[in-house]
Amino acid sequence: MKKKYAIAIDLGGTNLRCALVSREGTIIRKIKEPTSNDLLNSVLRLTGNLFSDEVLGVGLGVAGLIDRKRSRVLISPNLPGIEHIDFITGIHERFNVPVHIENDANAAAFGELIAGAGKGLSNFVLFTLGTVIGGGFICNGKLLGVSAEIGHMSIDADGEKCLCGNNGCLESYASARAILSKAVSFLEKGGESLLKGYCGGNFYKLTSEDVYRAALDGDMPAREILKTAGRYLGVGMANIINIMSPEAVVLTGGLAEAWDIYVQEAIKETSRRAFRDLYDRVKIIPSTLTGDAGLIGSAGLVFNE
Amino acid sequence: MKKKYAIAIDLGGTNLRCALVSREGTIIRKIKEPTSNDLLNSVLRLTGNLFSDEVLGVGLGVAGLIDRKRSRVLISPNLPGIEHIDFITGIHERFNVPVHIENDANAAAFGELIAGAGKGLSNFVLFTLGTVIGGGFICNGKLLGVSAEIGHMSIDADGEKCLCGNNGCLESYASARAILSKAVSFLEKGGESLLKGYCGGNFYKLTSEDVYRAALDGDMPAREILKTAGRYLGVGMANIINIMSPEAVVLTGGLAEAWDIYVQEAIKETSRRAFRDLYDRVKIIPSTLTGDAGLIGSAGLVFNE
Repeated sequence: MKKKYAIAIDLGGTNLRCALVSREGTIIRKIKEPTSNDLLNSVLRLTGNLFSDEVLGVGLGVAGLIDRKRSRVLISPNLPGIEHIDFITGIHERFNVPVHIENDANAAAFGELIAGAGKGLSNFVLFTLGTVIGGGFICNGKLLGVSAEIGHMSIDADGEKCLCGNNGCLESYASARAILSKAVSFLEKGGESLLKGYCGGNFYKLTSEDVYRAALDGDMPAREILKTAGRYLGVGMANIINIMSPEAVVLTGGLAEAWDIYVQEAIKETSRRAFRDLYDRVKIIPSTLTGDAGLIGSAGLVFNE
Repeated sequence: MKKKYAIAIDLGGTNLRCALVSREGTIIRKIKEPTSNDLLNSVLRLTGNLFSDEVLGVGLGVAGLIDRKRSRVLISPNLPGIEHIDFITGIHERFNVPVHIENDANAAAFGELIAGAGKGLSNFVLFTLGTVIGGGFICNGKLLGVSAEIGHMSIDADGEKCLCGNNGCLESYASARAILSKAVSFLEKGGESLLKGYCGGNFYKLTSEDVYRAALDGDMPAREILKTAGRYLGVGMANIINIMSPEAVVLTGGLAEAWDIYVQEAIKETSRRAFRDLYDRVKIIPSTLTGDAGLIGSAGLVFNE
């Protein structure tokens, strides 16, 4: 009898999330807890909470670079030390099922293919637009097992230094962190904006959602900041379209919510820059699974084996 | 009995090249003629010259964007009007064998996999470094059927306008055309360089090979032009390494010959910019098939069906 479920684990950021997922990509149960210092034990405990003999295997999505040959995490900026943890052996020894490990944005792309905006498509690119920018590629109906670190593509060779060491990374211009940092510097310099009222004068409490809200309320500085970030996103999208000739670009993450200003501006810039024949064939659409795409995709890797 | 040969056709530039190629990727016979205005008939005639009942099929490599769903050329900057030619039907009607069509740089990547520098590798990227810059991706031992137009990745969002309409394309900074154009403007402005002596005072006779020769002879302006172009190539290579996490980057085309200055500088810049864990795992190597890679790859597509 075919086992019905997979357990998916999302090691994406501040929370550790774990879900029981069906073959069809439906989340049956979901639990989460704050990320601890003892990651492997947290993963084993949460897995144990959802495990049964109907579980075929475990899929992990990790915010970081994956060594696919050795099924290890090479580095994760948010989870220092994770490169020393052997999740595959640890989970396999305890539960005796296959374990898969993938980058979280790649897993999200696969999730969108199974049960989201990419259903029925063969070739698309996912952009995850949040504090950082990541990506994942679906080619010929399969997840492409590559790094897909599109946020760390330089779009300005002599531009701002990025935390990764490169200059002019897309992430430094088009991420939520970049938008917020531009808004805060504007206010620090004494600029006038509705944003001042949103944070009771404490600029450091602001979020990128506040910037979008102010922009929708007609605040010109907030609009300009979002539009500039959107234009840079368009540079990055055009690059990826010229390289990957996708049928669709699927946008997810908090910033994808800022569709009317940030994304619209990005689409306009993309249309100006990408090869006409490729732009005419691509659709730029929002994800439908949003925050659950990574869990569904990580589970999908188990069934896809 | 398995048919032994494929016919490969290279519609890359000024010449139309045609070859009879074995399953192992050995070129048995090769013919060429200048590209005519009647492309389809030239292709049919050359194919007829090499055709026999031992030929399994025909593979075309075209410098341009390919519509893989409809097996058509969408656009080729060097071969205007090619988008109206239905090679597949034309060749199939005459010879009754399967016909494959691919971008020439993609075909070259596949050729390097079959019989060149990529033999034994599963994941690599080919950069074609000539008058223009192109690319091809091998993933999991297969040619990735995407546009791979890495020369038209913007590495300077507000940079020079490219012929393609985008700004700051890699090709505008790192191609042979870019190098030559920088050298000519330097001379036009009255700059002193060994290059003056190479062309009898007619700057427009110079080639990018002359620039490399002058640089090797110790000419400082030529060295600086090549090094600057190499640095930009490094920006592009780091981008592609961060996106595709290849095992190798294979460099081909005339400029790959300028290894000691242009490529060395590119490697230095790549090492500064790419994710450390990815850079440490990648080897940057010259192609071994050079000009024949596209023919061998186009033939390979026939056997690979």
